[in-house]
Amino acid sequence: MTLDQIKALIRTVPDFPAPGIQFRDITTLIADGRGLASAIDHLAERVPQGTSAIAGIEARGFIFGTALATKLGLGFVPVRKAGKLPVETIGLDYTLEYADARIEIDPSLVSEGERIVLVDDLIATGGTATAAAQLLRQAGAHCDTALFVIDLPELGGADRLRAEGVESHSLIEFAGH
Amino acid sequence: MTLDQIKALIRTVPDFPAPGIQFRDITTLIADGRGLASAIDHLAERVPQGTSAIAGIEARGFIFGTALATKLGLGFVPVRKAGKLPVETIGLDYTLEYADARIEIDPSLVSEGERIVLVDDLIATGGTATAAAQLLRQAGAHCDTALFVIDLPELGGADRLRAEGVESHSLIEFAGH
Repeated sequence: MTLDQIKALIRTVPDFPAPGIQFRDITTLIADGRGLASAIDHLAERVPQGTSAIAGIEARGFIFGTALATKLGLGFVPVRKAGKLPVETIGLDYTLEYADARIEIDPSLVSEGERIVLVDDLIATGGTATAAAQLLRQAGAHCDTALFVIDLPELGGADRLRAEGVESHSLIEFAGH
Repeated sequence: MTLDQIKALIRTVPDFPAPGIQFRDITTLIADGRGLASAIDHLAERVPQGTSAIAGIEARGFIFGTALATKLGLGFVPVRKAGKLPVETIGLDYTLEYADARIEIDPSLVSEGERIVLVDDLIATGGTATAAAQLLRQAGAHCDTALFVIDLPELGGADRLRAEGVESHSLIEFAGH
């Protein structure tokens, strides 16, 4: 499936979760078996050699991240919302487009110096992904690549990640917020 | 990897999320690339012929469910916590081991009469899985199979699902709560 065909499977929901936001909804893509498999194939092509694990951001990053990790035979490290992991964690507070938030990881799941690629469904301002990359590095990982299905380039997320030393690759883009 | 080897990768965390609960933590399994891939292989063997989609329960059911769907080339239907889906949903309130909860699905992602297999990381009392199966049926799906990585058989979840006409299969069991 081409990237244009993948894009055509994404649904746009106006005014969610707040008025004026055009929500790009991947549930219609993943409910399509060919669409899901093809999105994972395209993401897999962008995973650098030498990657040992995929990290995915709760909850939609779990969807693409674990499918990608399984396809490549890599481990998966969940980046979770606060309070979900059952062990001692490290965490970061950050500011989202809509609200404040905190993410956490279990640093014992990360090996010193291993190369971890970050995955999420969408990059907007890049706040969550930047915080996730910082956390993975704090745990000892080398994290210089982030993959997304969707980029909203006007929100500048890729630039923000690049300023942190993380190159991002997205399958498709949508104009506007 | 054998099921015993998969079981050995699961971490037990005492007193989470509440005193007296032995939390069976799959993050140590999925952080292991061979462990994750092998768990998905074992789940895939248990998906009946004629299945058109996998439904996974937020959030850990997304981890196993999407990897399984991608491996088999099937679609994935997310069963989400209340308020997360951006469109009109159908939902069910139910009682968990620790608290009350509500799950929702987008019925437009389900085709009338299609066969959907439900996936989650763990079955305890079966409350969440039973509610999920009921919702999928309400949306028009045929749902008679549920797959789990872990069963806590003393909590009776498999019996509760069977009483609803859903056969469950789990890769491994743990005694106790």
